[in-house]
Amino acid sequence: MGSYVGVFGMGVMGQSLALNIANHGYAVSVYNRHDEATKDFMAGRVRTDQQRQLVTPTYDLEGFVQSLDRPRKVILMVKAGPVVDAVTDSLLPYLEKGDIVIDAGNTFYQDTERRMEAYAQKGINFFGMGVSGGEKGALEGPSIMPSGDRALYDNYLGKLLTDISAHTADGAPCCDYIGKGGSGHYVKMVHNGIEYGDIQIIDEAYFIMKNLLKMSNAQMADVFETWNKGRLDSFLIDITYKILREKDDLTEDDLIDHILDESGQKGTGMWTAQEGLEMHVAIPTMAEAVFARNLSAVKGERVAASLVFADKPVVSIEDRDAFLVDLEQAVYASKIMSYAQGFQLLDKASRQHDWGLKLGDIALLWREGCIIRAKFLGRIKSAYDEGDVVNLMMTDEFRDEIKAAVPGWRRVVVKALEGGVYAPTLANSLMYFDGYTSEKLAANMCQAQRDWFGAHTYHRDDRPHEESFHHQWEQF
Amino acid sequence: MGSYVGVFGMGVMGQSLALNIANHGYAVSVYNRHDEATKDFMAGRVRTDQQRQLVTPTYDLEGFVQSLDRPRKVILMVKAGPVVDAVTDSLLPYLEKGDIVIDAGNTFYQDTERRMEAYAQKGINFFGMGVSGGEKGALEGPSIMPSGDRALYDNYLGKLLTDISAHTADGAPCCDYIGKGGSGHYVKMVHNGIEYGDIQIIDEAYFIMKNLLKMSNAQMADVFETWNKGRLDSFLIDITYKILREKDDLTEDDLIDHILDESGQKGTGMWTAQEGLEMHVAIPTMAEAVFARNLSAVKGERVAASLVFADKPVVSIEDRDAFLVDLEQAVYASKIMSYAQGFQLLDKASRQHDWGLKLGDIALLWREGCIIRAKFLGRIKSAYDEGDVVNLMMTDEFRDEIKAAVPGWRRVVVKALEGGVYAPTLANSLMYFDGYTSEKLAANMCQAQRDWFGAHTYHRDDRPHEESFHHQWEQF
Repeated sequence: MGSYVGVFGMGVMGQSLALNIANHGYAVSVYNRHDEATKDFMAGRVRTDQQRQLVTPTYDLEGFVQSLDRPRKVILMVKAGPVVDAVTDSLLPYLEKGDIVIDAGNTFYQDTERRMEAYAQKGINFFGMGVSGGEKGALEGPSIMPSGDRALYDNYLGKLLTDISAHTADGAPCCDYIGKGGSGHYVKMVHNGIEYGDIQIIDEAYFIMKNLLKMSNAQMADVFETWNKGRLDSFLIDITYKILREKDDLTEDDLIDHILDESGQKGTGMWTAQEGLEMHVAIPTMAEAVFARNLSAVKGERVAASLVFADKPVVSIEDRDAFLVDLEQAVYASKIMSYAQGFQLLDKASRQHDWGLKLGDIALLWREGCIIRAKFLGRIKSAYDEGDVVNLMMTDEFRDEIKAAVPGWRRVVVKALEGGVYAPTLANSLMYFDGYTSEKLAANMCQAQRDWFGAHTYHRDDRPHEESFHHQWEQF
Repeated sequence: MGSYVGVFGMGVMGQSLALNIANHGYAVSVYNRHDEATKDFMAGRVRTDQQRQLVTPTYDLEGFVQSLDRPRKVILMVKAGPVVDAVTDSLLPYLEKGDIVIDAGNTFYQDTERRMEAYAQKGINFFGMGVSGGEKGALEGPSIMPSGDRALYDNYLGKLLTDISAHTADGAPCCDYIGKGGSGHYVKMVHNGIEYGDIQIIDEAYFIMKNLLKMSNAQMADVFETWNKGRLDSFLIDITYKILREKDDLTEDDLIDHILDESGQKGTGMWTAQEGLEMHVAIPTMAEAVFARNLSAVKGERVAASLVFADKPVVSIEDRDAFLVDLEQAVYASKIMSYAQGFQLLDKASRQHDWGLKLGDIALLWREGCIIRAKFLGRIKSAYDEGDVVNLMMTDEFRDEIKAAVPGWRRVVVKALEGGVYAPTLANSLMYFDGYTSEKLAANMCQAQRDWFGAHTYHRDDRPHEESFHHQWEQF
């Protein structure tokens, strides 16, 4: 008997996933292009008897593939991009018809669909799989979003992936077949876009407490810890208050105060924002979370500009406790708006690609294991259980809570703007709400302008929508 | 002697460009896939002796190409997309080595570069050309942004395109060689992104006057007309006040009040926003202008949501005249921010593609002829004449004006948010300003979070930027 599955790539994520697989009783072969990583893994992280018995290290590609039961199942834990093609191509000489290569990276869904087609012509099954949870999730149970040929999932992958995935408190696995094609990677991409939004919303709450309320790190930690006991209970709020209490490694200060305010990004948030634009779905919360990272990254420009435009407005907040209540409302309502946007994007993509996404079930996949895990996701599932959902803000589950949040949310955003405190996701979430709930917007003027200079025509409010009109503006 | 140039495509834009060419003394052959359009054009729009002498209608592809002087210069006035490939392919049998096909559509720059390569292998020169100005511009002189092989421009195209382009009051043509590859279409794309921003900024001013100040169309027209005599003098403000005075064709009302508030889009604004994301350049003003169109387009959803969330905040403005002064500041400063973003995007793209864009000169190309034509563009040229520009807001030309505008601009955005009046470009321009001029942002928290869950590492404020740090957060 060979190994049930192989893991290609012994970075921290690959190592953790291999251990997770062994811990669930599956024999797993591992391989890395540089032997050192595999050796370090075997020496340093393969510790229990079960792990030693089930993990097989291999040091050449042919041996790796031949150590696997047929059909071979190879999970790629490599960097998304051309590396996936190169690695899959390198496996081809040893693979046989019907073998399965599973890309677990943050791959753009169109690349996955291209590879599915290309490798199918060579007799190989290519399968996509979104995975979220970081190193800890990979080890203890991530959220898994698999997509591709349903029969492959049912016959060879479903049990394994379900076993190694996170589970909710009541035992439901955070893994389910998503749909055909690249739908799993698409759902993972939107998960990451939502993650960008969640992070930026929290960071703006921190920024507002720090700059408008002049609170200490310890005070802010207490606020986030309190929030984490309520409806905002989530992994990201949890680590935020712990971060605020962390001492520096190199000085006597709090660590947070020595971390440079320049954000990096890996691209999935950017893709989500680009997809929102492509699909004509307004997702300002997520897009502005990406732009916020871009702005943070030009630190040198910002420092120069801060000297030229040194006059900052000063605002005072008289009742800190009342403002903190407002701030929790702002964070929570903004979060709902962000998810409302993300799920509208998933809905439209599902219709366009005929994926048949079960959106409520997708919310449950994110309930545990992944970076955005939160109680809140259970409520989105409940909202979808109500019936057809056009926008989450309209559901019984969230409607009244939003109404209650609006006044405080608005006070927070207004104060941030009065004080010149950059809070784009809180503000854009509110503007999204204001725009979405406005019967009339200014687009009648836009259509008049477009008809003037480009003869783009317009519809009328008193005529059927099928009719288009062009007005004879100025003669020339 | 044949015609100097051919125009393929007899839509309104193609017709107008052909007349413009003839009006400048060039012989021009015209062709359309359906003969009717060509016949209608010859019968209806070719009127002067010079036009009759210089315009040659053709009714088959071979005759069209053979009517042209060598090297043949064929300007495609067709819909961007696969049609460009199909039309160019259909011309191939009749073209000879060295002939030039010029795509004047709103083509994505990467498609232009792909075509340049593909047709070069067949001995044909493919050339890109951004054109702005709508029907009137095409006829009387558009803004033209040509890119590709410099020698082709110098030897065969430059004089023609310069002659038919718009000219500034002091006689400078709004046409100049942009650079190699698809740079002309790229510059045109960003022009359109800026146009989306300009339009949305103006439309929000209209929306605020209408909803916060409860002004009549006639009153608003007067305000825009006054603004148009000052630093906001521009084509788009000009048509806005005229639109507000336009009577309806079908009722006794003002036309603007019967135009449905659902915006369309053709895609160039979307591409610009996507490119900003791709290039990691924050361009929130333009991106939110696109999302504003997306939100406007789901009118049915908005109407439903407006009934569920019917409680709108009420704000009152005591001094209308003072608020209108603030509003002009808000519009002007937002416009500067939008251009600052657009020119940062052009700058970064130019460096990445090695296009060597002369940004000040590009501003002058937009001085007349195009949709965003405005006095303001001359000031951007002046800003670039100061020397290296990192961000337009930092230049002598604009710095003090921005400082003066900020308090009123902030009051307007705050009132809009207090009143629930959707004004995303005014607000996001201000937040862009606030973020860009902040020495510190909240990204230290973002980096701490990313290091926690993904070991993404961070930089420190007290160590060289080359050094990356990873903190040992909670054990697991």
